Amino acid sequence: MFDFDRIKSLLNQRRPGHALPAALYNDPAIYDFDMTAIFHQFWLMVGFDVELPDPGNYLGLTIGKSPVIIVRDRTGVLRGFHNSCRHRGAQICETGHGKTARLVCPYHQWTYDLSGKLVYAGRMQADFDPAAHSLKPIHVETVAGSIYICLADTPPPFEEFRDRVTPLLAPHDLLNAKIAVSATLIEKGNWKLVMENARECYHCQAKHPELAITFPLDATAHFAADAAGYVDRFNARMEAGGLPVGPVEGDWWQAIRFPLTAGNVTMSMDGKPLVKTPMIAIDGGDVGSMRWALEPQSFSHAFGDHLFMFTAWPLGPEETLVQAKWLVHKDAVEGVDYDPEQLAHVWNQTNFQDRDLVENNQRGVHSAGYTPGPYSVEAESLVLRFVDWYCDAASRYIEAAR
Amino acid sequence: MFDFDRIKSLLNQRRPGHALPAALYNDPAIYDFDMTAIFHQFWLMVGFDVELPDPGNYLGLTIGKSPVIIVRDRTGVLRGFHNSCRHRGAQICETGHGKTARLVCPYHQWTYDLSGKLVYAGRMQADFDPAAHSLKPIHVETVAGSIYICLADTPPPFEEFRDRVTPLLAPHDLLNAKIAVSATLIEKGNWKLVMENARECYHCQAKHPELAITFPLDATAHFAADAAGYVDRFNARMEAGGLPVGPVEGDWWQAIRFPLTAGNVTMSMDGKPLVKTPMIAIDGGDVGSMRWALEPQSFSHAFGDHLFMFTAWPLGPEETLVQAKWLVHKDAVEGVDYDPEQLAHVWNQTNFQDRDLVENNQRGVHSAGYTPGPYSVEAESLVLRFVDWYCDAASRYIEAAR
Amino acid sequence: MFDFDRIKSLLNQRRPGHALPAALYNDPAIYDFDMTAIFHQFWLMVGFDVELPDPGNYLGLTIGKSPVIIVRDRTGVLRGFHNSCRHRGAQICETGHGKTARLVCPYHQWTYDLSGKLVYAGRMQADFDPAAHSLKPIHVETVAGSIYICLADTPPPFEEFRDRVTPLLAPHDLLNAKIAVSATLIEKGNWKLVMENARECYHCQAKHPELAITFPLDATAHFAADAAGYVDRFNARMEAGGLPVGPVEGDWWQAIRFPLTAGNVTMSMDGKPLVKTPMIAIDGGDVGSMRWALEPQSFSHAFGDHLFMFTAWPLGPEETLVQAKWLVHKDAVEGVDYDPEQLAHVWNQTNFQDRDLVENNQRGVHSAGYTPGPYSVEAESLVLRFVDWYCDAASRYIEAAR
Repeated sequence: MFDFDRIKSLLNQRRPGHALPAALYNDPAIYDFDMTAIFHQFWLMVGFDVELPDPGNYLGLTIGKSPVIIVRDRTGVLRGFHNSCRHRGAQICETGHGKTARLVCPYHQWTYDLSGKLVYAGRMQADFDPAAHSLKPIHVETVAGSIYICLADTPPPFEEFRDRVTPLLAPHDLLNAKIAVSATLIEKGNWKLVMENARECYHCQAKHPELAITFPLDATAHFAADAAGYVDRFNARMEAGGLPVGPVEGDWWQAIRFPLTAGNVTMSMDGKPLVKTPMIAIDGGDVGSMRWALEPQSFSHAFGDHLFMFTAWPLGPEETLVQAKWLVHKDAVEGVDYDPEQLAHVWNQTNFQDRDLVENNQRGVHSAGYTPGPYSVEAESLVLRFVDWYCDAASRYIEAAR
Repeated sequence: MFDFDRIKSLLNQRRPGHALPAALYNDPAIYDFDMTAIFHQFWLMVGFDVELPDPGNYLGLTIGKSPVIIVRDRTGVLRGFHNSCRHRGAQICETGHGKTARLVCPYHQWTYDLSGKLVYAGRMQADFDPAAHSLKPIHVETVAGSIYICLADTPPPFEEFRDRVTPLLAPHDLLNAKIAVSATLIEKGNWKLVMENARECYHCQAKHPELAITFPLDATAHFAADAAGYVDRFNARMEAGGLPVGPVEGDWWQAIRFPLTAGNVTMSMDGKPLVKTPMIAIDGGDVGSMRWALEPQSFSHAFGDHLFMFTAWPLGPEETLVQAKWLVHKDAVEGVDYDPEQLAHVWNQTNFQDRDLVENNQRGVHSAGYTPGPYSVEAESLVLRFVDWYCDAASRYIEAAR
Repeated sequence: MFDFDRIKSLLNQRRPGHALPAALYNDPAIYDFDMTAIFHQFWLMVGFDVELPDPGNYLGLTIGKSPVIIVRDRTGVLRGFHNSCRHRGAQICETGHGKTARLVCPYHQWTYDLSGKLVYAGRMQADFDPAAHSLKPIHVETVAGSIYICLADTPPPFEEFRDRVTPLLAPHDLLNAKIAVSATLIEKGNWKLVMENARECYHCQAKHPELAITFPLDATAHFAADAAGYVDRFNARMEAGGLPVGPVEGDWWQAIRFPLTAGNVTMSMDGKPLVKTPMIAIDGGDVGSMRWALEPQSFSHAFGDHLFMFTAWPLGPEETLVQAKWLVHKDAVEGVDYDPEQLAHVWNQTNFQDRDLVENNQRGVHSAGYTPGPYSVEAESLVLRFVDWYCDAASRYIEAAR
């Protein structure tokens, strides 16, 4: 199906420390490969437990062109399925959130229970075996109220990620949160250009005036600021409050609690909290940001007063959907304790600005004169990490496949 | 041009009695193959004699991306041509209905008579031979007032179809009919999903409330209802009226007259006639439906009072245009003898509902978890027939081509 | 990257004197080949010196998907660059006209001077060598105020074109002109169909009523009219005025001064001047048209009162952008000395009419019955020249590449 020799050759053309050859950013065949070798192999962040509070709540998503469902079953456990009827393949649940007692295919009403078992199929012949036609499962895991899926038969080990990130994330009490705002944005750019953009703040000073107010622009690896005394004092204060700071990291994930710029409590236009009801009580919510990120497609910032999630969903070789969600404490009252527009302002503006940058980058890599340049080791360390990870993951897939 | 090994391999992957592998529903290369191996090889229903009443009347159509014309010549015979000038290939006639004394290319006015002969080409050199530059013909046949074309050099034999269907269709007197309504609809689905949808009523009970009023939902092969006594009485009544009922069928076609649900004369919201002037006088027009269908792209229902035609025209791997036409007796007066909106209501609603089902089916077959499931032998017998026919036709094309 | 065997086979299928096989007009792989083998190898006309009057003025263009910039440097010389940052490839200048002191990448503010030298890149490591990261140059040449670019490493020799066309074009004084009107038009047709259409007036009598007023419709090679006495008198008059008439030509270009139809001074609706301030004073501006054309993508007409330029920019296998510009003397005052709408009327109408013809031609070459027909040797000599040139250029590229 894939021309592995060509893909391997492109991967080999990449110079260490440099951006990728153009075809890896704009070729339809590479996009198809990425969907299979990356998005169908690795853990993808999809959202939060509180989006699926009760048995029967489901969330429909599309990975590339492949529809999946996450559903809370009768026992309260989250399960995932390929969202395709075992009869003629029709999509069973709509994309987005819903609630249903059973999963009923809209075409011929084949009906599955919440564990994926086929419990009704009308007019079928005597030798038809319903037990052989359950929905096909996908893997679902959760970490302190956040949800991840994997479409691989054998996913990368998840335990270390959960074990090491839980202590950093659990204090933010996501099981007592709610979605306050969600937004989607389509960027006419390859998903890797979207993620490279999302992995550095080298462009923030000039391009993100709102974000630059509170974001430590000189941050290097793990978004840790260089100003050692400042960071040390922050870390000591967090320790006193019982909050671990990390950093912790694995092959495809990383997490750290880091301080915002001096005097600022959250990422807002004035550094002051956006929500009156904090998610975390320690130091009045002045706990910096607990940022965690997964390759290939997410990063999130948990502040004292709210949480921001960014996930990227490829739609085509040069088109990516960005899904953003903002969470607040479940008891915070919209219009009283927080203003949704203000809550989302900094990151909405940042996302709009990044869309322009990504689309411009995409146009430029089509240039016959495009030559991958060197990343700044200091300012683009996490881009380097992402691109290195991508090349390794792609190469490993090819080795395993042939 | 085609990767026959791959296509053959996909055809071989199909399990008997089951739906097709996903690539056969969504791969652009398979779509290109289908256009050549199916749509350019088999008879396609295009419409009715009464759409081209006089010499010079023409109908322009596009098969995939290939424009063709059907034109009534000076002797009253229907002829078909590739709609492409023999000079630089410009399309000669517009798509749709028109009338012209000669076929004049709009580019440089090369002019053909209605038999396709080049009769004028300006400023050409002395050694130019007009006789070698006639329009390229395609095959056209008619059956009791309905029109079929084939783009193959050697079409499948047509005589048996004409001979056996004429007795069933001729009583509906299509040469004295007129087009009352026509409608087109674009479905974002592969043409085979459109046709599978059109070949069964397993989904009608839940999805087609309007159609379900009069359509025998429990129909099996040939749309014959199971209720033997009821069908026997209908058949006896038709025999008494001199109307054959069939079924008759060949490799790529079938026809049958079958009864609607009890008490209903036509497919309408109340089962009562939609047109005051009947097309057929026997039993006051209470003659059930004479349904005939051709693989790959049509079915039609001739009732006592009107006729409904459904044809499918692939536009791309995941896009199909549906053309629907409703015919009534030529003497029926619009607004007096029939209401066009009411006439088209049941099948328009049915087509809209089917569009949703087809588009949903298309999304689902993209699932990484899609596995072709088994058809219901009882409820999807004509889908099975269609899919088996498709696989056979595709395989035969490949065998012949290499 | 390219399937040279297939392309060579298609080129070999072409019969001498005939149009091209369909795939050369509609196949995406051929389009990609054309972009590389033609548009990235030959000289392309882009506009005029007066569009970039001062140091820092730039013009951004896209060749296929490849963005380039032409900029006037500090010394007044025009330079061209691939419009792609040497860091991560972002497009540096917007498409269209602009002015800037330095070329600053909008992504991370890498900054180049007008000679393309990298003069600023923030936060880069010590071993980063700015001198190795200048913008990649492209070739730029000018002829009597008109501008041409070439993306090839080694462009075709330009000197002969400049030397032989300068005497014909220089009297039109383009360095003292200005752009009065510019227009773009997207045609849903392959660029070769656009250019074939632009290389003949066989279709003008029937399709271009406005153009037909002043254009010598019976023109053959080089747009020279057959009426020898008339042309001889025109040529003698031009000689008396000191204006050479040519024809001159090379492999990929041609130029000639030819007379309009009798009594007409410029291409307008009444043959009278459209601009009160002439570009050329001889004989009151009654100097016919100095037409010059370059394969693959331009033709221009310089009249006594104005100049019309036509360039074609492929956007996809079946989509081409046409850029038209009208120039007048720099001292001509809009609304006083000329009416922009009247100035552009004849060629705007002609372009709209040609768009319909090209799009119709494109539809027709998709026909399964399309067979390339013979060109008229008399009426389509320049189409023949274009198509022969294309086949030769494509074949030479293939020979050199393998």
